[in-house]
Amino acid sequence: MTRQQLFEQITEKRSFLLVGLDTELAKLPAEYRAMEDPIYEFNKMIIDATHDLCVGYKLNTAFYEAHGAKGWESMRKTLEYIPQGLFKLADAKRGDIGNTSRMYAEAFFKTLSCDAITLSPYMGHDSVTPYLEYPGKWAILLGLTSNPGSQDLQMLQADGLNFFEQVLKAGNTWGTAENTMFVVGATHPEMFANVRKHAPDNFLLVPGIGAQGGDLGEVCKYGLNDKVGLLVAASRSIIFASNSATDIAAKARAAAEEIQQEMHGIMVSVGM
Amino acid sequence: MTRQQLFEQITEKRSFLLVGLDTELAKLPAEYRAMEDPIYEFNKMIIDATHDLCVGYKLNTAFYEAHGAKGWESMRKTLEYIPQGLFKLADAKRGDIGNTSRMYAEAFFKTLSCDAITLSPYMGHDSVTPYLEYPGKWAILLGLTSNPGSQDLQMLQADGLNFFEQVLKAGNTWGTAENTMFVVGATHPEMFANVRKHAPDNFLLVPGIGAQGGDLGEVCKYGLNDKVGLLVAASRSIIFASNSATDIAAKARAAAEEIQQEMHGIMVSVGM
Repeated sequence: MTRQQLFEQITEKRSFLLVGLDTELAKLPAEYRAMEDPIYEFNKMIIDATHDLCVGYKLNTAFYEAHGAKGWESMRKTLEYIPQGLFKLADAKRGDIGNTSRMYAEAFFKTLSCDAITLSPYMGHDSVTPYLEYPGKWAILLGLTSNPGSQDLQMLQADGLNFFEQVLKAGNTWGTAENTMFVVGATHPEMFANVRKHAPDNFLLVPGIGAQGGDLGEVCKYGLNDKVGLLVAASRSIIFASNSATDIAAKARAAAEEIQQEMHGIMVSVGM
Repeated sequence: MTRQQLFEQITEKRSFLLVGLDTELAKLPAEYRAMEDPIYEFNKMIIDATHDLCVGYKLNTAFYEAHGAKGWESMRKTLEYIPQGLFKLADAKRGDIGNTSRMYAEAFFKTLSCDAITLSPYMGHDSVTPYLEYPGKWAILLGLTSNPGSQDLQMLQADGLNFFEQVLKAGNTWGTAENTMFVVGATHPEMFANVRKHAPDNFLLVPGIGAQGGDLGEVCKYGLNDKVGLLVAASRSIIFASNSATDIAAKARAAAEEIQQEMHGIMVSVGM
């Protein structure tokens, strides 16, 4: 999916939401846990309830790997079930030497049908470039993350910039705004102006609204660019909006719709 | 496995070698590729041929994930096949927010039976501490890696130190030498003295000898500590020492034995 195609989908759907399928087995309603493939069945229900309100889905690989081969099969089936045209992101945070990165790229772009994968930038250019060889696929590098530990290393001063700013600079020498995005957590809205200095055109993947407490309006104030340039991910606040099988689909839809409506309002306010 | 147990195994076996099972399907002899589970059968052969010469095995998860659920099953079976008492490392380079790290810890320490996992430190303390809650298990943080891209970010100056030194310092506040190791590539032997300033007692996982060109003697000169403190990984130079099914076991054993003998000699030379 190209940057232009992503932008067109956003303007059409009036949404730049990615629904996060952090599908933790222990949190599923008992009715789902009793099924043959609980995670897949739950995901199907969430996808059915939300696919017109979002531009894609973000699958956090940890929640699948916790169940070994069976979990990988649930992940594969979920990715296949996502309707054509939606953006499919493996939130996998991989990052390794070149010959290994080529295997991860194969795992997520060929064996699975993902459009994008999140990567840790720590190992540098040859840990990222193998993913960029796939036309229409995306490498999404960790920039400034949403968690408390983001303050430990990412904010260190390195040659006059915060370390995460060095990552943004380097990332845009390895790739371009047509194949590279950056993760910037919604819990640091004050940093988005800084981010845009180094990455004016890149899409940013923004986790941290909802359960982690980030504010969408604040993020958009500094983070929007002329192609929107933001993919905002919400997971727990949508998929676990209820713990009852009887109303989870409706509650998940309502939670997603509330975010989509706010996004629509923000787009209108900036003339999109 | 405790640090003391690891040290005892090293002194008994006269080896601090980890054999890397980067088992790339396309590189296997045709006889293996024709089998029902080629990767597992090949790994069994390598393990049979080398288990008395090494202290453990390092499984690079990318080479298994490239085959989806089937690959994860090969990984699980391989880990089960490794004889009791050997060190089982998932070279997975994960790293995510706390609730996700808990799921990865479950995936590798409970669903699979690994003793250790490699982690990217980029996301900070809460991306690492969930792994430290498992007694006898190890978090192995990327420090200075062996690849060309290690020069892009890890060597930036951050508050008077190289960035990777900040990682070593931080890592030893999150964990201790009893549950935390660091990756330091053999391709930077001149940096081991620096590394030992920040991590005198930690075991270091050292990739990069063999195919990547690092020198064992140089690494040991600066890297050894009083508990040896090094786990040196070699993969391609051992497991692909031959491309023929008829002599691969013997050639792999010979390649592992050559390294083990060099390690034995180094240990003797420092009075161990």
